[in-house]
Amino acid sequence: RTEPNLICEFIFQIIRKALTEEKQVSTKTSAADLVTETDHFVENLIISALKEKFPSHRFIAEESTAAGSKCVLTDSPTWIIDPVDGTCNFVHRFPTVAVSIGFAVNKELEFGVIYHCTEERLYTGRRGQGAFCNDKRLQVSKETDISKALILTEIGPKRDPATLKLFLGNIERLLKAQAHGVRVIGSSTLALCHLASGAADAYYQFGLHCWDLAAATVIIREAGGTVIDTSGGPLDLMSCRVIAAGTREMAMVIAQEIQTIHYRRDDEN
Amino acid sequence: RTEPNLICEFIFQIIRKALTEEKQVSTKTSAADLVTETDHFVENLIISALKEKFPSHRFIAEESTAAGSKCVLTDSPTWIIDPVDGTCNFVHRFPTVAVSIGFAVNKELEFGVIYHCTEERLYTGRRGQGAFCNDKRLQVSKETDISKALILTEIGPKRDPATLKLFLGNIERLLKAQAHGVRVIGSSTLALCHLASGAADAYYQFGLHCWDLAAATVIIREAGGTVIDTSGGPLDLMSCRVIAAGTREMAMVIAQEIQTIHYRRDDEN
Repeated sequence: RTEPNLICEFIFQIIRKALTEEKQVSTKTSAADLVTETDHFVENLIISALKEKFPSHRFIAEESTAAGSKCVLTDSPTWIIDPVDGTCNFVHRFPTVAVSIGFAVNKELEFGVIYHCTEERLYTGRRGQGAFCNDKRLQVSKETDISKALILTEIGPKRDPATLKLFLGNIERLLKAQAHGVRVIGSSTLALCHLASGAADAYYQFGLHCWDLAAATVIIREAGGTVIDTSGGPLDLMSCRVIAAGTREMAMVIAQEIQTIHYRRDDEN
Repeated sequence: RTEPNLICEFIFQIIRKALTEEKQVSTKTSAADLVTETDHFVENLIISALKEKFPSHRFIAEESTAAGSKCVLTDSPTWIIDPVDGTCNFVHRFPTVAVSIGFAVNKELEFGVIYHCTEERLYTGRRGQGAFCNDKRLQVSKETDISKALILTEIGPKRDPATLKLFLGNIERLLKAQAHGVRVIGSSTLALCHLASGAADAYYQFGLHCWDLAAATVIIREAGGTVIDTSGGPLDLMSCRVIAAGTREMAMVIAQEIQTIHYRRDDEN
């Protein structure tokens, strides 16, 4: 845990500095999927630091993938990195922004570190050793009843009319099932951290990426939670879709309620 | 600013304590509109403290109104109080919870104080004297283009199928208008504070109350922002609906995009 912690504390200082500086925004695939100089800068910084320490390791990271790097998880030790999760929030100075670093060996997630930059919260999880926010142990909600659930989701990058209908239809289904509330905070990673801390009972999304999920998956599992595919089957890190919940029962209820929104897999092409 | 600050610092300690204790929840009008012992406790505490200091003043507050007190704004000095905004979040320990205290004389809002309990942020605004978060001066966004806007809204207490259709339809309209994103964080008051700080470009809601709006309205106006009715006309504090934006242009664009969801006025009956 020490090594990633130190890296994140370093990154944290850079992000904080960037947050107080002027925005430099260029559009990526759509207005909703913004990219800033900071994303590139932070990603390069993390990868350089890790490469120096672990020259044989592999990397999967958001900006490298956007620039054409293959997004394939092998058995090699692999770091899975989202330099700035909540980029749209970041651009707007909306204080829900995180750095996410996960690590897998033999395709098994070993640990994850997520830094909620503006609130100075460091979430960590290591397989078999629990999950923490700063020094506080995390424990998921034990709720199984959707009518008592607070549910989190995110809009996803596709905004065509058919996708929007499905996205909003899913929220409608959950509210009709009497869920206490649905929240959209603009960061998959931090939404998953809220789930790990028991502040929400379920999370689902279509259109997120392996770098949004890798670190959070370890943290949630180590906090006692369930992370599965939206079909109800096992999680596929490259499938760009997920349900996470405090209990398996809750995850399965969500799987039954929501309709699939199709996104390309991360490892396609 | 000193008096409300001191009260809020006191309240803050109580809420923090309550957050770490067991939940005691009873249902109010619906599963979505939860009420806790803490609401009652905090409201009584604020009103007692203020009554002792200002025996002739009037009070409008969430739990007193639920218990049958009239919700009418007169020319008398009046404190408008939401003891726990984001009650559903509070019940779930979702860390977006605030105490809101506004003050009006001759129906004119004079100052507002909002405490974001879990993050220890105190937002204050006084007519003619600016708005602050802790000691940092607040300044709204100057954005006028909806295709560059981050927009906040809340679901509201009514969850019947027709209301849900309108609520989700409004989000659909804004996303089709290419808004960067829509966020739902579960606290009207804190959403309005994000607007005041420039972290979002617009906020709209149907079904919020005068105690959600009073303090935030002063803070937003003092941060340079606009607070109007959803029709585009002047704000009516008792109308249970609002658009707030960094610029008047942005507020008017939102007014044109969204469809009205009907709620009873706060001063009806």
